[in-house]
Amino acid sequence: MVLSGHRWPGLLEMTMIATQVGFAGQSPVFESTRVESFIRAHRFERPTLVLDMQAVADRYAALKAGLGRAAIHYAVKANPAPEIVAQLAALGSGFDAASRAEIELCLAQGAAPSAISYGNTIKRAADIAFAHQAGITLFAADAEEEIDKIAVHAPGAQVYIRVLVTATEADWPLSRKFGCAPGKVQPLLARALAAGLRPVGLSFHVGSQTRAARMWLPVLDEVAGIWHAAHAAGFDLELLNIGGGFPAFYGDEVEQPEIYAAQVMRLVTDLFGAVPRVMAEPGRGMVAEAGAIAAEVMLVSRKCDTDAYRWVYLDIGKFSGLAETMDEAIRYQFLTEREHEPVGPCILAGPSCDSADVLYEKRPVLLPLGLSAGDRVIIRNAGAYTSSYASVGFNGFPPLDVVVI
Amino acid sequence: MVLSGHRWPGLLEMTMIATQVGFAGQSPVFESTRVESFIRAHRFERPTLVLDMQAVADRYAALKAGLGRAAIHYAVKANPAPEIVAQLAALGSGFDAASRAEIELCLAQGAAPSAISYGNTIKRAADIAFAHQAGITLFAADAEEEIDKIAVHAPGAQVYIRVLVTATEADWPLSRKFGCAPGKVQPLLARALAAGLRPVGLSFHVGSQTRAARMWLPVLDEVAGIWHAAHAAGFDLELLNIGGGFPAFYGDEVEQPEIYAAQVMRLVTDLFGAVPRVMAEPGRGMVAEAGAIAAEVMLVSRKCDTDAYRWVYLDIGKFSGLAETMDEAIRYQFLTEREHEPVGPCILAGPSCDSADVLYEKRPVLLPLGLSAGDRVIIRNAGAYTSSYASVGFNGFPPLDVVVI
Repeated sequence: MVLSGHRWPGLLEMTMIATQVGFAGQSPVFESTRVESFIRAHRFERPTLVLDMQAVADRYAALKAGLGRAAIHYAVKANPAPEIVAQLAALGSGFDAASRAEIELCLAQGAAPSAISYGNTIKRAADIAFAHQAGITLFAADAEEEIDKIAVHAPGAQVYIRVLVTATEADWPLSRKFGCAPGKVQPLLARALAAGLRPVGLSFHVGSQTRAARMWLPVLDEVAGIWHAAHAAGFDLELLNIGGGFPAFYGDEVEQPEIYAAQVMRLVTDLFGAVPRVMAEPGRGMVAEAGAIAAEVMLVSRKCDTDAYRWVYLDIGKFSGLAETMDEAIRYQFLTEREHEPVGPCILAGPSCDSADVLYEKRPVLLPLGLSAGDRVIIRNAGAYTSSYASVGFNGFPPLDVVVI
Repeated sequence: MVLSGHRWPGLLEMTMIATQVGFAGQSPVFESTRVESFIRAHRFERPTLVLDMQAVADRYAALKAGLGRAAIHYAVKANPAPEIVAQLAALGSGFDAASRAEIELCLAQGAAPSAISYGNTIKRAADIAFAHQAGITLFAADAEEEIDKIAVHAPGAQVYIRVLVTATEADWPLSRKFGCAPGKVQPLLARALAAGLRPVGLSFHVGSQTRAARMWLPVLDEVAGIWHAAHAAGFDLELLNIGGGFPAFYGDEVEQPEIYAAQVMRLVTDLFGAVPRVMAEPGRGMVAEAGAIAAEVMLVSRKCDTDAYRWVYLDIGKFSGLAETMDEAIRYQFLTEREHEPVGPCILAGPSCDSADVLYEKRPVLLPLGLSAGDRVIIRNAGAYTSSYASVGFNGFPPLDVVVI
């Protein structure tokens, strides 16, 4: 075990150097997390995501303390490891499921049907029928056709209407894929009512990785207007689903989870008044920091001897777990074993024979100048949206392995 | 079997209407391929790629006829279905492998080690050693460190140097991920020689989906200059690997494979003279048109009643097989069962709870106005870069199923 007992952390992200509290100059020293220590003490045959169940439990407790009366529905898609689902079910969490398979997973890991909401606005009719049979009573919708499907296949179910909001300040604003325009909310509520469903409320999504609670204000304000208008029109709404957007630390400062969640709930109370039921769907904010990936350098090169930038190729890329590097949206932090070496800018790429498999090029990453093939790399806070995004075997590379500690 | 005997093809791509020879107005009628007929005659539980082995054999014969003396090395990454590899091995094809797993696949399906080149310029040292043990003698490299790894783990092997070309006219120009600048070619050849390797030649990639043979000219011209300079400097190069770039039909006109390949080879002879060994690595051009995907409409909606565009959600998306819709690079054609209906513009999206899972938005797709949930859709010419790109189960959606006929 070459590495055990070694003080390991290297560094390495320009943004982190600029913003992480407590770092000085170019040799920041991290407090290692349990997963990082575990990775240092072990060898891995291939890229492996290590997940810490205690970190998940701690984060659940922090979010629960901050969210207070709001029910937490963990967004399973962020990481569907059965151990995470079982852990959260045991702690009393609810679940936001995107598909029949995710519902089956939650039920198999001990979740009650009443704790599961079927939050995908795009559902196959047969899957709605399956969920109804399984005892799920809460469904999302944002379109006439979806309401009609739910009315036929889950008669009498509760539905909430997802609203398309525009005022996001998130790091990764969502596309217009989900939600209906504000003007369609009341017609959809009416259609649900007419079809024998129970239109109980509204949902929205503030945008992925919304780093500060104050950024929720314009979105909550927009949704509150729609909420109050629906009430005024006679719709007896009782459920506000505030969705996800809870951030993880990727180098830019984020607020502590409990404080963040409490601030969001204060804004909700200020703007919506006494809503009978509030639910929240943290995904990234629940699990990202509970995981790290053990990876390896495959090759370091320069295209031309006079290039300022090196190319660093890892054994994991866009198609084997790091899909969120798309458009350089999520910028992971990297640790190496060359803590004290000077650093230089690198373009980071994956191992596949695919020219699109480049991770960071527009904003290069600072890595030690001595980095070379065979060096081990830790990708920090990579517990969300990694293992399930991995391809079945593009280029013959296997999916990300997962180890739970 | 509701659909059998029905004259099925719908349409549906603006570009196709404009450019496909033989179509008139908005009701083009296609000649169905065997896979399309098969899909019409069957029902599928989930998105399924149907592959036609006869079509693969026919395309191999056409490319072989056009490429003449050049050895074909099928780019396995385009579609690693064992049946395709076995079929091509039986026909005498060689293979371009991107990883240890792809080498193992080729060997298991009957390929001789001498027919396999290890074409990934980013290789794990242990995988080079494995390939060497397995009898592979031909390796790609574009950097000093890679040459050093090959020299240690596959002593005496043949290497070709991949060159980074700039003059591409491809539909999907490659990034700078692969290849070294022209100025590094001779130093790398010299390093390989000094390390006891056999530096046999050069490779390059003209760019994915290079639709006309004449588009190869500037790239071939660029590489020929490098080739002749290396010869003049005393390097006894014998192998020219012209890589891939052979196109598939996605709506915009492409030349017939045999004619296209023959024209490329004519340019090679004109510019390079009597090269002892030429190899080509078609992937997309070999298998894309041999496959079609059976899919289904999940939901059709408008965000707002006055929107001109509908949103159409399929049961397959960016994370379950259609990764090449990234940046709308590859524009698939869609067939529906509503051949005679008028059409209107749609934004097309996948089924996952992921806002990035939108297929075509910048250039909407024309689809029948009556399209609704449950309608079957065929995605044409989808045999390349689909099944292996699919995620292991993002959102609980299973990978693309594959059926071989």
